[in-house]
Parts: sequence; C-alpha cells; structure tokens
Amino acid sequence: MEISIIGAGSWASAIACVLAENNKVLMYARNEKDVNNINNKHINKKYFPNKLLNKNIRATDNIEDLFRNKILINAIPTQAIREVLEGVKEKLSNKILINLSKGIEIKTYKRISEIIEELNSKCQYAVLSGPSHAEEVIDKMPTALVCASKNQKIALNVQDLFTCDYLRVYTSDDVIGVEIGGAIKNVLAFGIGMATGLKFGDNTKAAIMTRGIFEMNKFAISHGASSKTINGLCGIGDLIVTATSNHSRNNRCGILVGKGYSLDEAMNEVKTVVEGIPTTRALYELSNKEGLDLPITTEIYRVLYEGQDPSISVKNLMNRDKKSEY
Amino acid sequence: MEISIIGAGSWASAIACVLAENNKVLMYARNEKDVNNINNKHINKKYFPNKLLNKNIRATDNIEDLFRNKILINAIPTQAIREVLEGVKEKLSNKILINLSKGIEIKTYKRISEIIEELNSKCQYAVLSGPSHAEEVIDKMPTALVCASKNQKIALNVQDLFTCDYLRVYTSDDVIGVEIGGAIKNVLAFGIGMATGLKFGDNTKAAIMTRGIFEMNKFAISHGASSKTINGLCGIGDLIVTATSNHSRNNRCGILVGKGYSLDEAMNEVKTVVEGIPTTRALYELSNKEGLDLPITTEIYRVLYEGQDPSISVKNLMNRDKKSEY
Repeated sequence: MEISIIGAGSWASAIACVLAENNKVLMYARNEKDVNNINNKHINKKYFPNKLLNKNIRATDNIEDLFRNKILINAIPTQAIREVLEGVKEKLSNKILINLSKGIEIKTYKRISEIIEELNSKCQYAVLSGPSHAEEVIDKMPTALVCASKNQKIALNVQDLFTCDYLRVYTSDDVIGVEIGGAIKNVLAFGIGMATGLKFGDNTKAAIMTRGIFEMNKFAISHGASSKTINGLCGIGDLIVTATSNHSRNNRCGILVGKGYSLDEAMNEVKTVVEGIPTTRALYELSNKEGLDLPITTEIYRVLYEGQDPSISVKNLMNRDKKSEY
Repeated sequence: MEISIIGAGSWASAIACVLAENNKVLMYARNEKDVNNINNKHINKKYFPNKLLNKNIRATDNIEDLFRNKILINAIPTQAIREVLEGVKEKLSNKILINLSKGIEIKTYKRISEIIEELNSKCQYAVLSGPSHAEEVIDKMPTALVCASKNQKIALNVQDLFTCDYLRVYTSDDVIGVEIGGAIKNVLAFGIGMATGLKFGDNTKAAIMTRGIFEMNKFAISHGASSKTINGLCGIGDLIVTATSNHSRNNRCGILVGKGYSLDEAMNEVKTVVEGIPTTRALYELSNKEGLDLPITTEIYRVLYEGQDPSISVKNLMNRDKKSEY
C-alpha cells in the first residue's frame, strides 16, 4: 500500500519512517529542493540531516499526486490547513484523512476536524496524537499514541497501521478531547517555558502543569470532550513531554521570553512555527467569549500580546483567592 | 503560637522554615547531635548544611515535649510511624495532626490516616501533599499544595497556616485520594527512573507517567477516592515533580537500577529511605488481593522483588494487547 503525507516537517518525516517499514510513502513538500533531497539523497535536510530515510519514502511537489492513495496524513501547520486543502477539497472525498497537526485556527477559533468539515469534504477523519517527539520516534524509542475517530472501524485501522515494536496506539472516539488537548498543551508549554526562563524550580513548573490540566479540562468539558481524554496521553502525556523537553519549540520559545527576550526576538531564535502563540490568542479570545475563567492562559496571553512582565504573571497566579482544589 | 514537628528530615526542615516566619517551631530529632546543631548552630547538617535556619526553630530529642502544642506535624518515614506514635498515642487525643509522610505500611497495607485511626487516637487528622521538593521550598520557590481533611474547618485552618507569598494551599475533603496519590507516585517515579537508566527518551517516560496515572486512578477509585484528586496536584503534580527531577531519591534509585545496579547497590548509593520500594510491594500485593490489574506496578515489582531485567519490563508493556485508551 502507498500512503500520502501532506507536509514534510519533522513529525511528518518521523511518521513516514514508521509507515515505510511496511508501506510505500509519498510526501508532499512545496520546495523542489526538499523533494529532490528526499528522492535522490533520501534525506530531510532541514530536520534530520544525518538520518538516511527508508527508500520506500518518496516526495512530490505536486499536491495532486497525493490523491492517488486512499489514506492521506495531514501534517502541515494549523494556520495553513484551510488554505492548502481548499484547493483540493473535492479530491478529499471518500479518502481517509489522519490528522497529525495540533492547534486552533486563529481566524475562526475552529479545531482541525471542524475546518475539514467546513470544507465540506466527505472524508473519514481521524486524529493521531500523544506524547511524541519526532526526534525520538525516528530513533525508535518506545512511544504511546491515541487515534480518535467518530468511526471506530477507522480508529482500529489506524491503530493497526501504526502499531509496531516501538509504537503503541490506543483507540478513542473522543475527537474533540484529543484535538483540544493537543492544542492547549502548546499554550501551557509556552507558559512553563517562561517559568523556566524566570529560573523557577520544578515545584513551580509542576504546579503550572497541573493547574493547567485543570484549565484544559474546564475548556474541553465545556466543548463536549471527555475529561478522561484530557487526563490521558493527549492531554497530560503530551503536556509533560512538551513542557519538560528541549525538543519542544513552544517550551524553548517560552524560556527565551521568560529570560527577557521580546516575542519577536524569541521567535526569530527558535526559527520554526511556534503553534502555542496563535493558539494562546484563539484560546483566550474564545474562552472570554464563552465566559470561561482560565487564569494561566490569561497570564500567558498578557505576556504575549499585552507586553506584561512574566514575573508579574507568577505573582498574579500565586496571590489569587484561597480556594479548594475543585 | 508554637507548632511541633515529629521528624527532622529535609521536608520537615523546609516546612519548619515556612512556619517559623510567623510561629515558633519545635522539631523532634532522635539524634542528640542533630538537636544540638539545630538549637546552637541553627543548622540541619545532614540535609541543609549551608542553610541558616530561622531562630524560631528549636529541637528536642524528647518526643513528649512535642505534646505541649495543639498542632503536631508528622514527618517521619511511613514504615516507622506506627512504632513511634504507639508510645505516645494517648497524648495525641484532641490534637491536630497534619501528616506530611507518603506511603503505604507494608505489614498492614494501611494508609497513614488508617494507621492513626487504628492507634485509636482522637486527634483531628489532615494531610498536606503536592509537588514540593524541600530544596525548593526552603529557597522560597512558588509551590502549590493541597490540604485534605474530613473536617473542612481543619483544612481551612491548615490552608491559612501555610499560605504565604510562595506557598499556595488548596483545600480538599478527599483524604484517601491525597494519600494514595502521594504513595503511588513514588512507585511510578522509581519506574520512570528505570526508563531513564535504560536510556529511553521523553516519549517513553511521558507514556509511563500517563498510563501510571491511569493505574493510580484505578486503584484510588476502587478505594473510595475521587479521580479529580488523582488528576490534581497530589497525583499528576506530585508524580511530575518526582519523576522529572534529580532531587527525588525514588527517581534516582530507579535510574541506578535501570543502569544495571542491584537493588542493594542502588539503595546503598542513594543512602536515605526510598519510600517507593516498600510501597511497590504493598501496592502489588494489595492490588493482586483485590483483583486489580496494574501492569506498570507489576513490572516494577518484578524488577524489584523477582530480579527481572528492566528492559524486559518495557517490552512486556509495549507488547500488551491492543486496546482503547479507556
């Protein structure tokens, strides 16, 4: 079988390597040079310059080519999905679309499954998420993921497709929970990065993570998700892996802001897309509109979009009214 | 007001420093040298040799002295609590006992509130727990804790007593959940340490933490606790801080075992009490008796008590039957 991947970033490449063990893989990259490097040198130069890719992996810069396959995997940045898929939406009909991207569309406050639905495509949608640095999956480190779909047959198919010695895939029917967990963890990872940059310790970071999970639950439940999903691999798990690791650009960018860099300076230094920044804005604006109180998100928003000093944020959080845990 | 602390370990000393800002504190240490160091040099030599303690902190080696105060704080290792308190149980009546210790008594499978109850003491019991390395609290790093008591007045009193600029205390009525979270996180931290020792990456550790929280929930709910507590500061939060930090002896000891040290060699190297080791046995035996399936705990037990190679444990966990997340 050949499987298509829309995108050629680090996670797309790692997932391509998993699939290429038993399948052919066709990746889409916009840049001709990237395509040539993958096809001729079997290398993804930007993300894994020292890793020889499986020869089952081919690339194309013509997005139309992807649609010769039944299964397509989406791995492009959230804010670009609508634009890229708009032009090919008819071709998506009757395909299986497995989404790997995480975030909320800033213009519409929509999750990715909602964007796909709005494109009126009749594809079967699944989302694959969980604590998974691409750098470690490509090195075959044991990793656990969740595949959620409204259609459990699709979820089971995706589970079979990806399960191998080092990848354990659980199924779920909670698409909303998986998408919200994946989106908000980037916001929180940015905040925990700021605490690191401010030289706070492990206690502070664990407190922000845990109370952040509380906020994630609040938002997710009000949007129809199950708290079990948030308290599982796609919420807690993904937050832990994102917020405790240097592999994460959200965390790294937050560290720089905590150290006193301006947002522009920090983004310049990290270079690639930092999904947590637009997602913070979408989450803050949407939760305000819905009357949800998300104190940690609010403080991160103030630092990112209103120029508040990050140390003020920590004081604000510590000095809130005394209360019970729930 | 003067407050008594049973114990003079690292967490006892950090909590003494918090309380000493507005109170007198009387600590109990068995060793006369330790008592003299605290009283004359204002130093806890074993744990914080470079930290000058507040002069409001005094020590005694006569446990009876502690009972001149209304509030007593328990901070001695779980396996020693029954023996130490047995001799003074009458004096505990009508006192407020705030417990800081974490674990399950191996001989009886009892939690600490159950031990206190069995001693037939009519004290008011509260437990204070959450993600809190002593080393960071003594440095006044922002930290969040939970105080649980069946009596909400007591929980609110304890919240007032400890709340300060750098300590945020939430109240709870779920004593069982707080105690179980604090006990099991040491077991899981040991397991995550082993994964680190085996050179697995962040993905693997996040997966063990998250699926470990699932096990913690399973055990806690069957014992009458609320899953909200487990998914809060005393479960997730404390697990994160224990499993991602070098401050934790459970994690450190697990790392050594993962690297191939025998349990004795590892315990010898870490030197102080490693609460996760007896708790693993208590948890494994108790869950077996109760027919609960805790796969991660089982694998840690096999390594600790049956000499299984830790790398076999990871393979066993990755190759379980495919399933849904919940």
